[in-house]
Amino acid sequence: MLTEEGCKKRRSLLWSRVPEHLEWLLIADPRHVQYLSNFMVQPLSFSLGERCLLLLERDGEKATLLGDNFSIRSAAAKAYVDEEVVEGWYDHKHSVINRDHALFNAVKTVAERLLGKPGSVEAEWLPVGAWEILAADHEAHSVSNEDSGKHKTTSLDLGTVIRSMRRSKFPDEIDLMKVCMKAGAAGQQRARDVIAEGVTEFELYRQVQEAAVAAAGRPGLVYGDFRACTTKNPKQGGLPTDYKLQSGDLFVLDYSVVLCGYRSDFTNTLAVTEPTPEQVKFFEMCSAGMKAGEEMLKAGVKCADVYKAVKQPYLDAGKGDVFTHHAGHGLGLGHPEAPILVPESTDTLQAGDVVTLEPGAYEEGVGGMRIEHNYLITETGYERLSDHTISLT
Amino acid sequence: MLTEEGCKKRRSLLWSRVPEHLEWLLIADPRHVQYLSNFMVQPLSFSLGERCLLLLERDGEKATLLGDNFSIRSAAAKAYVDEEVVEGWYDHKHSVINRDHALFNAVKTVAERLLGKPGSVEAEWLPVGAWEILAADHEAHSVSNEDSGKHKTTSLDLGTVIRSMRRSKFPDEIDLMKVCMKAGAAGQQRARDVIAEGVTEFELYRQVQEAAVAAAGRPGLVYGDFRACTTKNPKQGGLPTDYKLQSGDLFVLDYSVVLCGYRSDFTNTLAVTEPTPEQVKFFEMCSAGMKAGEEMLKAGVKCADVYKAVKQPYLDAGKGDVFTHHAGHGLGLGHPEAPILVPESTDTLQAGDVVTLEPGAYEEGVGGMRIEHNYLITETGYERLSDHTISLT
Repeated sequence: MLTEEGCKKRRSLLWSRVPEHLEWLLIADPRHVQYLSNFMVQPLSFSLGERCLLLLERDGEKATLLGDNFSIRSAAAKAYVDEEVVEGWYDHKHSVINRDHALFNAVKTVAERLLGKPGSVEAEWLPVGAWEILAADHEAHSVSNEDSGKHKTTSLDLGTVIRSMRRSKFPDEIDLMKVCMKAGAAGQQRARDVIAEGVTEFELYRQVQEAAVAAAGRPGLVYGDFRACTTKNPKQGGLPTDYKLQSGDLFVLDYSVVLCGYRSDFTNTLAVTEPTPEQVKFFEMCSAGMKAGEEMLKAGVKCADVYKAVKQPYLDAGKGDVFTHHAGHGLGLGHPEAPILVPESTDTLQAGDVVTLEPGAYEEGVGGMRIEHNYLITETGYERLSDHTISLT
Repeated sequence: MLTEEGCKKRRSLLWSRVPEHLEWLLIADPRHVQYLSNFMVQPLSFSLGERCLLLLERDGEKATLLGDNFSIRSAAAKAYVDEEVVEGWYDHKHSVINRDHALFNAVKTVAERLLGKPGSVEAEWLPVGAWEILAADHEAHSVSNEDSGKHKTTSLDLGTVIRSMRRSKFPDEIDLMKVCMKAGAAGQQRARDVIAEGVTEFELYRQVQEAAVAAAGRPGLVYGDFRACTTKNPKQGGLPTDYKLQSGDLFVLDYSVVLCGYRSDFTNTLAVTEPTPEQVKFFEMCSAGMKAGEEMLKAGVKCADVYKAVKQPYLDAGKGDVFTHHAGHGLGLGHPEAPILVPESTDTLQAGDVVTLEPGAYEEGVGGMRIEHNYLITETGYERLSDHTISLT
């Protein structure tokens, strides 16, 4: 869980990054409501897919959560707000129709106090219905500033401002991600223990999930790639199938454990039986790429240069074509998120970035593999956050 | 998964339920995009929390899916649409910022062909940003018709029209829910097999999840109540804790298995050791309530009357106060959803409704329990969809 201190600091930082004349902000992306208040609808609840809104007011840096009674009750963790506007939806007595209208009723409750004051809304997520109910004097709200400008109606792109803030993780975010890391590592270890010829991808997935959730100490989501990369189909990804692992296959275990919206994302590849000499050679290239990338990790380094460093061992071995994807990416409430370690990146590493390094190698006749660690970028280098075993055997 | 035939039939039915002059509908609630096209972002993927939009055009009943390249690729199952407008977000080469703007770019692509034509949008979910990009001549869109009308600006409440449609399930929806039921039953059986003094709620939860997912044959979500209802705290709900089950406790296992947005939701209560005579008496009241409710289930019956029937055995035993919640509720893409079996319901059962019956009994000194089955309502009665063992021991 995030902390009250962290949520308040992020709200203060956000106020410092939006124009001074704005008196209120209406946050609508559920990830950003979590980021700024620690409120998230528990995805493992009947309220999966519902959402609350977060109203921030500059005066006193007040935070108000708006939602229906059942969504607020389905919180994944304690919300750090000054006020909750809870509108009744279901009461165990009367018929129900449209739950979203309870959310809209909550918006109505605050509309009057915003009237005539300049504010900004998160236009990527705020529903039109809530916007119309506000009927306020919105001087600015968020619409794309990445496009040609043809449809640009306002000056502030709130969604992008928050995404940019999200890059520099706060200590409570790192702590939460470390819980995810620990859970992820337990799943990787379980896979090492149970992998064998004849076991299906789906059976392995269930073992990994059980071990990861047990280590997390609470229910969470486990998603990612649980696939055998074979000599015939070296690049496989996604959720597991009923395919039975065979001798010569490489099982790529690239998955995330998600708790309160935050996640780990690291990888190992396991050879089902003894790896071939070519597979070992590929693994050595991946390891060299990871090592070269690690040597670059530090605030101020260009992401494109990290990519180049990871790629170099492949080029040196005359095998540049087997490593085709990014060399890593940012991680947090989303995945992938900025910064991305790619050849044409325009980003520079910042202290507080959490990134992955994930070199891979895929070739018909040999198979496919990928390894990955997670790192917190610092002014002087990095802290490695993940600590699972990376080894084909 | 839903079928192409089912999706097309639902789209046709929707067109028959909206005013004739409307030429297009923009569906934004992810559950309704799934309902009408079988497209849902797989929640067990890195795209969890992202969404696509579904544009329906009356001419030819054309369906167009709008989204970013990674969200569309994260489909839980095949989308049944005529066209996909896929806008690039991440390409493994360039920096990324705001993924939502790729969705908005997809909206821009279709804005011109909607210009000047009357249409309706789902205002509960369509983001303001997409609405502004459309810049079309929206004659009608959905805003609450449940409120005082003060803020009502339009004539069509599209979100409520679809919710109303959702009550009568189509065969493909029932088939998908049956897969969830089978998975749910496997989890209930596993709990019976492993329950014992000293086992924690959390350990039982993990066993149930493993068994349910194994029976589903694919990854899915498992959520609900996994709690010990004790003599001191007879009414407990929510996700499991580290509490170790003790002699005399009742373990209420009321959970759902969710696949492609659809779910089961049934319950059994297990006595950790031999139940007390009072607990057995409570169980008999619950069973009598369920039986009385089943005898009422049939299209045309008032939901309030079903509630009364379920409640009667408690009243007959002079124990009306131990059964405090609803007697059941609708089930499908949401939970609870209409119709709700409550004393002041204004609903009437319809053929195609899928409802639960869930009598419970909670009293300090005795403990808490609940049992639940799921039923498809027909013109002549019902088909019971769930088939797990209901028994304290």
